Amino acid sequence: MRGAVLYGPRDIRFEERDTPRIAQPTDAIITLSATCVCGSDLWPYRGIQAVPEPTPMGHEYCGIVEDVGGAVTKIKPGQFVIGSFFASDNACPNCDAGYQSSCQHREFVGGAQAPVLRVPLADGTLVATSDVPTKELIPSLLAVSDVMGTGWFAADAANVKPGCTVAVVGDGAVGLLAVLSAKRMGAERIIAMSRHESRQKLAREFGATDIVTERGEAGVARIMELTGGVGADSVLECVGTQESMMQAIHATRPGGYVSYVGVPHGVELKGEELFFAQVHLHGGPAPVRRFLPKLIDLVCNGKINPGKVFDLTLPLEQVAEGYRAMDERRAIKALLRP
Amino acid sequence: MRGAVLYGPRDIRFEERDTPRIAQPTDAIITLSATCVCGSDLWPYRGIQAVPEPTPMGHEYCGIVEDVGGAVTKIKPGQFVIGSFFASDNACPNCDAGYQSSCQHREFVGGAQAPVLRVPLADGTLVATSDVPTKELIPSLLAVSDVMGTGWFAADAANVKPGCTVAVVGDGAVGLLAVLSAKRMGAERIIAMSRHESRQKLAREFGATDIVTERGEAGVARIMELTGGVGADSVLECVGTQESMMQAIHATRPGGYVSYVGVPHGVELKGEELFFAQVHLHGGPAPVRRFLPKLIDLVCNGKINPGKVFDLTLPLEQVAEGYRAMDERRAIKALLRP
Repeated sequence: MRGAVLYGPRDIRFEERDTPRIAQPTDAIITLSATCVCGSDLWPYRGIQAVPEPTPMGHEYCGIVEDVGGAVTKIKPGQFVIGSFFASDNACPNCDAGYQSSCQHREFVGGAQAPVLRVPLADGTLVATSDVPTKELIPSLLAVSDVMGTGWFAADAANVKPGCTVAVVGDGAVGLLAVLSAKRMGAERIIAMSRHESRQKLAREFGATDIVTERGEAGVARIMELTGGVGADSVLECVGTQESMMQAIHATRPGGYVSYVGVPHGVELKGEELFFAQVHLHGGPAPVRRFLPKLIDLVCNGKINPGKVFDLTLPLEQVAEGYRAMDERRAIKALLRP
Repeated sequence: MRGAVLYGPRDIRFEERDTPRIAQPTDAIITLSATCVCGSDLWPYRGIQAVPEPTPMGHEYCGIVEDVGGAVTKIKPGQFVIGSFFASDNACPNCDAGYQSSCQHREFVGGAQAPVLRVPLADGTLVATSDVPTKELIPSLLAVSDVMGTGWFAADAANVKPGCTVAVVGDGAVGLLAVLSAKRMGAERIIAMSRHESRQKLAREFGATDIVTERGEAGVARIMELTGGVGADSVLECVGTQESMMQAIHATRPGGYVSYVGVPHGVELKGEELFFAQVHLHGGPAPVRRFLPKLIDLVCNGKINPGKVFDLTLPLEQVAEGYRAMDERRAIKALLRP
């Protein structure tokens, strides 16, 4: 088969790779219905994160089970399944606590920008839909695999409650779906920080009530103005830079909640500053597995349509153009059809 | 009157100061029944925190109201009152949210190592007992003013719940009262990190079930061992150094809670490390005012006896010896009688 492999900064190739096969008795092999490019893929693509060796890319996936290992009992060939970027046994103490992304046996699922994928710990990792979904649902079900689950975690980790005031830092796909999640959780006011018209439009469609175009301390000042000088109850940091993190912390009221769901790059928090900000801070790699059953249900029942973040659809072989379009911010998120 | 004034590292003087008088119509003047030396007083005493000018010291207090300003309506002369180190109006949005230490009109209450103290925003800041308490209760009521309120906040901010496993980093008075607070909140297992025998003894008396004498990564390893390799549900950081903070973060299970209640000195948290630790983090200057009514009630009804942390009692004029004894760790906490 052919799949996407990153060789170095802006050098993504679509090339021959071994077709994955069952390697462990707990594995499943799935044929992908769709895959996509993640905002986090852009860190190594841009050279901000080193690529020590040619690396098969992609960690968002949904598709049909082709084969399972001898120890797999719940997942069956023929099922349509969705999983997260961390395979988890869904049975250890960390999984029981709802932190499957810190499963004691977790394995990163890589190489999903390809037609076929091996998923370890299949019974713990994959969630099957009741029927094979219609083609129209595929983009939203694919979104659930990471970007929607991560946006949902952003809202959950920032304690979004009915009636509260939320600010979202970052207008990438995760930020936009954090807006959708906050809306779904009953937030009354949702301030989206965005300076791109098409993204502002989607943010409003997803439930944003206010748009702030300023960044950094000017952005904080605008949020203070919009919240009577107090700050937002919940601020969802969906970027991962020093500026966005401090913007989030400073825009939160004392006793309020800051979540951060993008891998921080070069972020350092000064203890004293954090101390006097008096915010709650929580984040990390989203435990998407915790949310999969609920989110799949919301998608299948037409309650949410997170697939709208895909504003570019390409055949898998044009994966390089998907990266380019996202890197140049011509596209919010690129869906790839194998 | 004479009170304690810090001139520079280890130069604390007991000298003549103006007796405080009503300066604002919202003030109260109280005659102190007792005051004490705080662990946080040791930072400037040790020269770790600069003292730009001679500074009247002390911020823990309880006593009898002598006089109130014209705008004070609830607090009356003759009442026995307790307040916190931050005066607060207890009426602004931050106070309403339970974060009185971030009151929009907060003022630091300093100079309490003296016979008489001016307390701003008296109606919002002070809580009166129903009767003037017996002499025996004074140490515990004084403790409520800061060190007990801060220990309680440590447990509250780290989400201590019935049945959970708690670790406390730091065996100073705050750490010991964090143990007491965790016990009171129903923690099943409380691991106190301490290498001083007298403090271990008091920790056990307050409810500690396990003592860990190792520090840093060795201390983390011990906690991992005690928790089946998972980490504690709640870790209460009561020191404020880089080592103690990282010890707390690394000893917490993914999805668990870390609180920090001592002003961090030289602490820097790397975003990526925090991200993959996946803990909840919350702390800051304790909003003691939120807890005063409850804690006063627990003390007056004999349910808790936080005054046990005072293992040295001195006449106020010997305040310098109180600092020395705490600096040299000969005393956990020094109570001063004016």
